[in-house]
Amino acid sequence: MHFPEVLPLQSGAQLRDYHLAYETYGTLNADRSNAVLVCHALNASHHVAGVYEGQPKSEGWWDNMIGPGKPVDTDRFFVIGINNLGSCFGSTGPMHRHPDTGRTYGADFPVVTVEDWVNAQARLLDRLGITQLAAVLGGSLGGMQALSWTLQYPERMRHAVVVASAPNLTAENIAFNEVARRAIVTDPDFHGGHFYEHGVVPKRGLRIARMIGHITYLSDDVMNEKFGRQLRSRVLDAAQPFAGSSGDAPAPSAEGYRYSTQDIEFQIESYLRYQGDKFSEYFDANTYLLITRALDYFDPARRHGGQLTRALAQAQARFLLVSFTTDWRFSPQRSREIVKALLDNRRSVSYAEIDAPHGHDAFLLDDPRYMQVMRAYFQRIAQEFA
Amino acid sequence: MHFPEVLPLQSGAQLRDYHLAYETYGTLNADRSNAVLVCHALNASHHVAGVYEGQPKSEGWWDNMIGPGKPVDTDRFFVIGINNLGSCFGSTGPMHRHPDTGRTYGADFPVVTVEDWVNAQARLLDRLGITQLAAVLGGSLGGMQALSWTLQYPERMRHAVVVASAPNLTAENIAFNEVARRAIVTDPDFHGGHFYEHGVVPKRGLRIARMIGHITYLSDDVMNEKFGRQLRSRVLDAAQPFAGSSGDAPAPSAEGYRYSTQDIEFQIESYLRYQGDKFSEYFDANTYLLITRALDYFDPARRHGGQLTRALAQAQARFLLVSFTTDWRFSPQRSREIVKALLDNRRSVSYAEIDAPHGHDAFLLDDPRYMQVMRAYFQRIAQEFA
Repeated sequence: MHFPEVLPLQSGAQLRDYHLAYETYGTLNADRSNAVLVCHALNASHHVAGVYEGQPKSEGWWDNMIGPGKPVDTDRFFVIGINNLGSCFGSTGPMHRHPDTGRTYGADFPVVTVEDWVNAQARLLDRLGITQLAAVLGGSLGGMQALSWTLQYPERMRHAVVVASAPNLTAENIAFNEVARRAIVTDPDFHGGHFYEHGVVPKRGLRIARMIGHITYLSDDVMNEKFGRQLRSRVLDAAQPFAGSSGDAPAPSAEGYRYSTQDIEFQIESYLRYQGDKFSEYFDANTYLLITRALDYFDPARRHGGQLTRALAQAQARFLLVSFTTDWRFSPQRSREIVKALLDNRRSVSYAEIDAPHGHDAFLLDDPRYMQVMRAYFQRIAQEFA
Repeated sequence: MHFPEVLPLQSGAQLRDYHLAYETYGTLNADRSNAVLVCHALNASHHVAGVYEGQPKSEGWWDNMIGPGKPVDTDRFFVIGINNLGSCFGSTGPMHRHPDTGRTYGADFPVVTVEDWVNAQARLLDRLGITQLAAVLGGSLGGMQALSWTLQYPERMRHAVVVASAPNLTAENIAFNEVARRAIVTDPDFHGGHFYEHGVVPKRGLRIARMIGHITYLSDDVMNEKFGRQLRSRVLDAAQPFAGSSGDAPAPSAEGYRYSTQDIEFQIESYLRYQGDKFSEYFDANTYLLITRALDYFDPARRHGGQLTRALAQAQARFLLVSFTTDWRFSPQRSREIVKALLDNRRSVSYAEIDAPHGHDAFLLDDPRYMQVMRAYFQRIAQEFA
């Protein structure tokens, strides 16, 4: 959807003449009361569910959660996925042309915040004729958007479903983001954010950023279970000769080690390198900076002297919060802070702390208890307009 | 100390014509029974205590622990610090010349393991005429060396003091090492490890490596306490103009944000960049690869089907193990694995789990309970030869 008008941003800058990519699933009911907005996190898009025709592998990123008969049942709900501004999956972002200069935005794309995204999402809903959402749903950074919706447009939603999220980033969270950004910015192929014009991509930096990110998405436990100290298998090596060596790779020792500092030795290394390589093929470096910064900046309590309870006094929605025990990126403690602030304000809150081994990634996986909690909550919402 | 003879390495390679830098503190007693070997971790050296004449800021890295009247009391013990092979503080390493080729070793420096280091240390002790150590002491990777000593030279030591250590790295530990290595290896200034000849240093990679390392040394708690979400102070900015901006840095918003993806916004970013910059000025990139690999490879249970109890059956020393509650790099759980394996073998073990907020770094800091545990244990050792 094209928006010719100006969108004022929190930074004081503005965007105009922008596009938002979105998808919808299911049917909007007669009184337009069954719409659910799904907000995405760092590495996702408006394509939340289903597959594109003739592309069986194009499953939406939350396809296990959203669809006909699924916990967020598109036979009952009208689900909307929107790609956020500054992202790289269809909505206007750094790789698009600045309407004033005709030059690719690159590093000149304005800093966007969670609040800006929510404002842009609200305008899209205006155009769709949706005055009030049944729910806003998001995990991680998506959960921050759901939370921000309750403060920016308290009357425009009935429920907020905030999964594996936090009221702001800790110093450690910011630190990981900053290392990833430095890896990108100091890649010589970054060219100050204007690499498009040079026909290169700062893949080295993107790979490092993704590897760091990936470590923080998984739990120590699940990494040990999946990879442990397993060496890269010899079967693999036979098919795929030893990477990076010039034919004289040392034969494995009696202990199975090859004694190399640069070649892959452990399975976990192979896995991380693969994740980094894949990511660097499709993700935009400026988008990475923008989205991690939006994470850093999000802090609704800031305007209220750091008091989350005061910040959340504006919320009117009913809430479901979900956290996962082994999530050390956004730990259960962070969700409990939100729950407490809401209870202090006598808001209606359901909270589920799911005992799952998969760390932050758990919010995208098929834990049966998690799925059951989500299904039950959305069934309750559906009864309101049934 | 110069060693002309060949040192066979675990990898099958060998080193010859090498130097080990070492320092001693205190006096070796008549029956040579009061020697304590101190092993260092990634970023440290043989200079464990005291200051060099006329250089008041040259304190040894464990100066709070070791010295006259300190927990490891150099009025009673003869303390030896050795810089490990492959390091960059005086012992033979990648920046030295290969005796065969005359060329700087660079990436051709052989992979060294904890076991190799221990063998080299034992040879130095031979030269010093020390048959049996009162104790081997180390924290983190240094603790792995102390543990390995008990298996490689069980009769040559009476005590092993293993602080904030682990019987091997977890997948997550290896993962963090691997990201740091990739940042270094993919820095265009690395030149396959032969950057010396190009007159450059892969500082970008070293900075990223150090930033990642630093995050894992601190606890989430202490980072929040020290930095939290504090913005870089304006006072600092007045004295030191806004870094990276071309004079047109945006004025801070009402919320205090400047809305920038590349400039420093939070104190934690400033701190990490500073740590990275400092490190990249003095640390050798090939050393970083070598030492992190030594960490990855250490796994005494490997030869015993992964059974630590069987591996530690060879140990004869009495043990003190210390861990710190908020250390998530080498968590208390990892120390308890060692304790359990020793107890399974009916070895003498003392174990202290110190409730300290500082994460892995705690082993270098002045926690009073920690200091007291160390003092008491070394007093007990001293009574053996008093």
